[in-house]
Amino acid sequence: MTSAEEKRLAAEAAINHVSDGMCLGVGTGSTVELFIELLVEKVAAENISITAVPSSYATELRLHDAGIATLPLGRVTSLVCAVDGADEVDTKLALIKGGGAALLREKILAAAAQQLIIIVDSAKLVDKLGTRMPVPVEILPDALALTMDRIQKLGGSPRLRQADRKAGPIITDNGNFILDVTFPQIPNPARLEERLNVIPGVLENGLFPTYADVVYVGKGKGATLLQR
Amino acid sequence: MTSAEEKRLAAEAAINHVSDGMCLGVGTGSTVELFIELLVEKVAAENISITAVPSSYATELRLHDAGIATLPLGRVTSLVCAVDGADEVDTKLALIKGGGAALLREKILAAAAQQLIIIVDSAKLVDKLGTRMPVPVEILPDALALTMDRIQKLGGSPRLRQADRKAGPIITDNGNFILDVTFPQIPNPARLEERLNVIPGVLENGLFPTYADVVYVGKGKGATLLQR
Repeated sequence: MTSAEEKRLAAEAAINHVSDGMCLGVGTGSTVELFIELLVEKVAAENISITAVPSSYATELRLHDAGIATLPLGRVTSLVCAVDGADEVDTKLALIKGGGAALLREKILAAAAQQLIIIVDSAKLVDKLGTRMPVPVEILPDALALTMDRIQKLGGSPRLRQADRKAGPIITDNGNFILDVTFPQIPNPARLEERLNVIPGVLENGLFPTYADVVYVGKGKGATLLQR
Repeated sequence: MTSAEEKRLAAEAAINHVSDGMCLGVGTGSTVELFIELLVEKVAAENISITAVPSSYATELRLHDAGIATLPLGRVTSLVCAVDGADEVDTKLALIKGGGAALLREKILAAAAQQLIIIVDSAKLVDKLGTRMPVPVEILPDALALTMDRIQKLGGSPRLRQADRKAGPIITDNGNFILDVTFPQIPNPARLEERLNVIPGVLENGLFPTYADVVYVGKGKGATLLQR
């Protein structure tokens, strides 16, 4: 079973949470793209009405092209539900996100969602966060040297994420840089989240210790449900 | 004695920390503007060489016009000293900053400075932080509704700072909004700083609990020195 097939199974499980009239948060990434395809099919087949709150330009453009109405993230205090992917999911449902550099708006969306539904293929499951994926950290470009220094003092090895098809570093949807930070271990994701965010110039980081309520993992003939 | 005279006395006290060859952090605000005037005079009179690291477009433009070389904030890990103003200073040298909406880069500068020298007129001294000044909080525009909601749940009353000479809210040098947040009391500035910064979409806040090393307060015929 390919990774793409597993992602599709997870997306199919999440689509059952969608109902007529819903205002739905929609995250970013390849698994979410499959979810949007299924969402478009469902809206057409059942003739229902959906408003979506996107977490990135990528998702906003995709929703717009599909004819699904969007509401800007900045207007939203609370949402019934949001669907997003993740780069790593540990056994306590803590996540690392930010492979697509959308972590800042994704965390705003996650915080607004009463229920955050995460959809992943089985390769994303890890025993310990940080096993295969560094922690992405969004920083103000004006804090590059300082944040790298402070993150090293926390035990991390930061690397400025470089762009393809653009000279130099990637620039996020918010105009900032991403540091990909490798830590030898992450014993307490919630504490590390706080310690990173209190560094001046760190705008947000990709640790989502307690946001996920439900995780669907594509595997075999369906999706396994993990719950908090 | 006017406020401007007091500010000048404080700036004069800080100028004694400047020496030839120094790389000096320079903050933002009306008191810092007086400091820059004195700095320009000292550089000319003593024929010394200074490099400055500015915390805002305002200060960068002013330094440039005065012919003082600047180094971008993003290249700096550590500085011998930085000079900045403050909106409130309490008895433990905790500060509220951000009246000029430069708090994010000012905190990066403060963190990089081995010695942070604060210069104020006597009206800035308070027994308790938050007495006369709300806490400015820089937020991503995409988090407006969520951050206002979360800050209210922390007991604060947020107000979106409006611009003059521009329609709508002020936009910071970093492209973001400022919420001015009134709290009934601030018993623990360091804890509140952390609790604000962990809200998704909050990029930084104007509480500087432990950054100031030296405070010069203009008063009478000179400046009073407060030290940690």
